[in-house]
Amino acid sequence: MTAIATVAAAGLDPEIKRADRLFAEMRARTEDLPGVTRPSYGEGEHAAHALAAEWADTLGLEIAYDYAGNQYMTLAGRDRSAPRIMIGSHMDSVPHGGNYDGAAGVVMGLAALDRLRRDDRVPAQDITVMAIRAEEACWFSTHYAGSRLAFGLLPPEELESCTRVDTGRSLAAHIKEAGFDPAPLKAGKAWLDAKKIRCYLEPHIEQGPALIGAGLPVGVVTGIRGNLRYKRCRVQGVYGHAGAVPRDHRRDAVFAASEFAQVLERHWLDREAAVEDFVCTIGELWTDPTQHTMTKISGDVRFTMDIRSEDNQVLLDTDAYLRREAARIGAARGVSVDLGPFTNAEPALMDKTLRGILREKASLLGIPFMEMASGAGHDCATFANQGVPSAMIFVRNDKSSHNPEEAMEIADFGAAARLLGALLHELG
Amino acid sequence: MTAIATVAAAGLDPEIKRADRLFAEMRARTEDLPGVTRPSYGEGEHAAHALAAEWADTLGLEIAYDYAGNQYMTLAGRDRSAPRIMIGSHMDSVPHGGNYDGAAGVVMGLAALDRLRRDDRVPAQDITVMAIRAEEACWFSTHYAGSRLAFGLLPPEELESCTRVDTGRSLAAHIKEAGFDPAPLKAGKAWLDAKKIRCYLEPHIEQGPALIGAGLPVGVVTGIRGNLRYKRCRVQGVYGHAGAVPRDHRRDAVFAASEFAQVLERHWLDREAAVEDFVCTIGELWTDPTQHTMTKISGDVRFTMDIRSEDNQVLLDTDAYLRREAARIGAARGVSVDLGPFTNAEPALMDKTLRGILREKASLLGIPFMEMASGAGHDCATFANQGVPSAMIFVRNDKSSHNPEEAMEIADFGAAARLLGALLHELG
Repeated sequence: MTAIATVAAAGLDPEIKRADRLFAEMRARTEDLPGVTRPSYGEGEHAAHALAAEWADTLGLEIAYDYAGNQYMTLAGRDRSAPRIMIGSHMDSVPHGGNYDGAAGVVMGLAALDRLRRDDRVPAQDITVMAIRAEEACWFSTHYAGSRLAFGLLPPEELESCTRVDTGRSLAAHIKEAGFDPAPLKAGKAWLDAKKIRCYLEPHIEQGPALIGAGLPVGVVTGIRGNLRYKRCRVQGVYGHAGAVPRDHRRDAVFAASEFAQVLERHWLDREAAVEDFVCTIGELWTDPTQHTMTKISGDVRFTMDIRSEDNQVLLDTDAYLRREAARIGAARGVSVDLGPFTNAEPALMDKTLRGILREKASLLGIPFMEMASGAGHDCATFANQGVPSAMIFVRNDKSSHNPEEAMEIADFGAAARLLGALLHELG
Repeated sequence: MTAIATVAAAGLDPEIKRADRLFAEMRARTEDLPGVTRPSYGEGEHAAHALAAEWADTLGLEIAYDYAGNQYMTLAGRDRSAPRIMIGSHMDSVPHGGNYDGAAGVVMGLAALDRLRRDDRVPAQDITVMAIRAEEACWFSTHYAGSRLAFGLLPPEELESCTRVDTGRSLAAHIKEAGFDPAPLKAGKAWLDAKKIRCYLEPHIEQGPALIGAGLPVGVVTGIRGNLRYKRCRVQGVYGHAGAVPRDHRRDAVFAASEFAQVLERHWLDREAAVEDFVCTIGELWTDPTQHTMTKISGDVRFTMDIRSEDNQVLLDTDAYLRREAARIGAARGVSVDLGPFTNAEPALMDKTLRGILREKASLLGIPFMEMASGAGHDCATFANQGVPSAMIFVRNDKSSHNPEEAMEIADFGAAARLLGALLHELG
């Protein structure tokens, strides 16, 4: 800890200091250099859940788990039958990811309940902190698995068809191995009922550079981008000698893939010109390491795509456009450009009343903030799309996320926690 | 063996049948499905050399090895001090390559000497079949290592700096491990003397589709393309969240690499428009498998380039152009596009007199042929550039080469062997 950080920590409330210690412990238990790795339903995720439960236990919270292993840590309110307030986020991470993406929301929820306990306040209704499973789509190739399972929304066949990228075993198998019960999930049984939830609040680190760029510790989210995800795009051409095959005889998978990538990027520029919300990424791209060499035309390229927008029609139109372009490029080059299946997480809007309270409280508390869209997807979209009034608070974070360099300052976390506390106070 | 192949084989000369059996044995001993793998100075290459030596031994040829382990199998001529005729090619293969690329030339040389023995003919001068080491640049990232070592032409530092892609150990270490002596090679000592070689003849499978397309079993080569090879091109950007980072903040290595690939392909079209000989290939391209995921902007892409032309100035101009474009793309996108070092194998022309004899003999024998440039590089370029009159005979081969699908018909091999025999007869 640097001298500056010590000075800052000295000014922190006790529950924020405890949160900071918990982050350090969580990093130590799930370290996988560079960064941390907490696979969905893997050891690192379990460790994070266990650490959250330890804190909840010292606060005397009621702890429960649903069929899918989502963890609920509840502070009893005065009216136990009233629709509850939920605060949640996920505990898994991408491979070699950062320590805060997901976990910070759960830890902030616990810090808020810790503060209520310390102030000896009993809320009007139950407040439940939810530690959600399996949010990071890189593991099971499906979005928001944990929160959708809690609502009985995950298509039952995905419990078998979604296999974890590192183990090759199904989501159902991993749920069972973790000690939970996939049977009711396969029957589409819901644990949560939207009507019994007053609102859902998700604090989360910002995963882009907007708050850093603006010099603001906190963001109030307006909506969450939806996405299209393609895990198994593939260009298949024909391997051949790098020197001896004339251009018109080549079926070069690399040049075809690079043309497709440029078409995708051009489409992005066209969306910007049309003032449509849009981002896209080819995160993985590779020739076959068991077959490629420098002196061989490549006959096989695989890649992934992640495409996001606040407007689902923009996403669906993009899919149709890209499939036409894939067919065109394939025909022109004598290769196949197969985009494979995609998953579609729909965009979600945040609740206007909650947003208004957050703006008002931030101003009252003197916490500099701005309103912004969430480029990343979040479990909060599941709740919002079920009709639960939802809100997200972003915490400033340097170096983006989904990478080991992710860097949140605990003082910014503390500012966001004060804002969350003020919102809970307002809600009673 | 199919019925048709049996009928064809029944009409083959005995030495061609023996060659066919040797190919089968070589495939069996070096199989690495899909295809065969004979690494330079590796087990598969050793096995191929041993099989060649077995045949040479039954013919009573003199067998010798130079410092680098190139194998010389000599049929004594009437005047043993006269400049010798050499027939040669390499025995190594790319990983998961075909059975004939390289080996066919050595086997055809042995078949030709077998035929001379059977006909009880003693040539005017020695005829030496040379089984060359380490031609495939994929292993040690340097071109024609075996033939250049035989002439003392390989820069001595490359014996240590060139490391084999699979073992990471140096060329010198592998030569020593194979039982040969890197010390004189480091001193630049030559085993071969160009003045003592009357001519060098290299039979080789065609590595492109030209002969298949033209329906001709044999090609007479006019010249060999030179090449530029880049083993360690790298685009470095910054990893980031796929949804949350705005476009103008991204440093996406994949989009930068795809733009560079498209620039390279456009350069090819421009060379064609200028009627300049040119081919180029990005054989390997990959994001870092230990860091990439679908939901992360990629900060790192590596790739290789192989660029060829009959005109070395076209190659050198291309390098200068690509480095300017790499710098431009890097600056525009906030990434680095580093092409790294390259190797340059110069183009080589075939001997006009030998080409004339080959054309004449093919016509006399009724073997349909055409003249053509070699898109692939060959050890023959080393001999030609040392001033040794050189010629190459191409054998029709389906499905290109450097891949497991490579498919030469033994009847075409037989036709090329008859042409080689007629050339030797003409040379005395």
